[in-house]
Amino acid sequence: MNAILASTSTLHNQEYLEYLLPHLKEHFKNCDFVLFIPYARPGGISLDEYTANAAKAFSKINIKIKGIQEFENAAEAVQKAPAIFTGGGNTFLLVSELYRNKIMDELRKAIQKGTPYLGTSAGTNIGGLSMQTTNDMPIVYPPSFKTLGIVPFNINPHYLDPDPNSKHKGETRETRIKEFHSLNSQPVVGLREGSWLELNANKVTLKGDLKARIFEKDKVPYEVETETDLSDLN
Amino acid sequence: MNAILASTSTLHNQEYLEYLLPHLKEHFKNCDFVLFIPYARPGGISLDEYTANAAKAFSKINIKIKGIQEFENAAEAVQKAPAIFTGGGNTFLLVSELYRNKIMDELRKAIQKGTPYLGTSAGTNIGGLSMQTTNDMPIVYPPSFKTLGIVPFNINPHYLDPDPNSKHKGETRETRIKEFHSLNSQPVVGLREGSWLELNANKVTLKGDLKARIFEKDKVPYEVETETDLSDLN
Repeated sequence: MNAILASTSTLHNQEYLEYLLPHLKEHFKNCDFVLFIPYARPGGISLDEYTANAAKAFSKINIKIKGIQEFENAAEAVQKAPAIFTGGGNTFLLVSELYRNKIMDELRKAIQKGTPYLGTSAGTNIGGLSMQTTNDMPIVYPPSFKTLGIVPFNINPHYLDPDPNSKHKGETRETRIKEFHSLNSQPVVGLREGSWLELNANKVTLKGDLKARIFEKDKVPYEVETETDLSDLN
Repeated sequence: MNAILASTSTLHNQEYLEYLLPHLKEHFKNCDFVLFIPYARPGGISLDEYTANAAKAFSKINIKIKGIQEFENAAEAVQKAPAIFTGGGNTFLLVSELYRNKIMDELRKAIQKGTPYLGTSAGTNIGGLSMQTTNDMPIVYPPSFKTLGIVPFNINPHYLDPDPNSKHKGETRETRIKEFHSLNSQPVVGLREGSWLELNANKVTLKGDLKARIFEKDKVPYEVETETDLSDLN
């Protein structure tokens, strides 16, 4: 495998994908184009609008983007793609559309055979065993919560530490993940903004400047440093 | 109908249900006991632990609580209950358990025939047409997202205004609801903590000190004052 699973597409006060572009230039070098999967439609924008946004960012590193909606056969587009990027937005919508277009399995196969892959936010969440540690609203009912499982755990993108000054009584992210573990056993990687996972062959490494927070069932959550090998977290 | 749908069970620096107790004393007066539905299991606590917490709070106003798990037949318990309280926690788990125990319809019928009802958080979310504007994690796959529909719209409990100082790039609540409206048409009431909806016969009124934020498809979101009649919001 040859994949980057990033917590977020955009850092505060930066342009879309800005912090990742130097890495993406290397990651996608020699690729004729990158197949963009815009199904997650952030803020409800159209597939074409979203594709134009991605194309604009990638033009800065001279990489061409083609939206999957431009192809007649989505499965074939995934099979033949020289590289693939799944953008963020709503994970329920993304997963529903991956199943409806019958490309969940095709996407897994493509990544497993080594097609360079980038996921951000929802596109990273689907790299886990299931989408059940998403932060998104269930705006549509997907046929299953099962996702790609190209890492042996679940991912919580945009991981947010509890705010000690908050007076808000909604559940913290940590409480939500604890609820997940009352019914499910796989570990969860809380990936802070600016962090990503790098998949190289079968090795999974934490990248970026920050630590990640690891949640295992019936264990006290703990921090891991950047460059930690997470291949055996399962 | 005779129902209170509260955004939260607990305000900052207060005890569980503290701010609601004066209203609940009136709401549940002359009820032999209140049937408690603890299925949402906040933080993954057990049904019995959760029931004990509710019983402790209600003991302050001399009202007895019985957990639905103490009854052999859940449907019959709902049909015969003098009053019902559904507590908060995880909405996916709550909805899954209501369906698994075959009481979603029974609960709707009981409320519609006038059984005094209290919902907090997840127990309020299910009062809407669907659970699709929950903030919770999809820790379990429910057979449907459809809920009680005792109000003609959807509810977002623990509604949180965007923080202008935040550097976090996860979606704001408003963006999430906008994504909901890209696929769904019913209005959404963003219910801030300390607010509740009072259902009296077929009238729905906003209560508490705060305004609520209303989201309608293809409209700019707007604020409504406490005591606003929301019966016709659909």
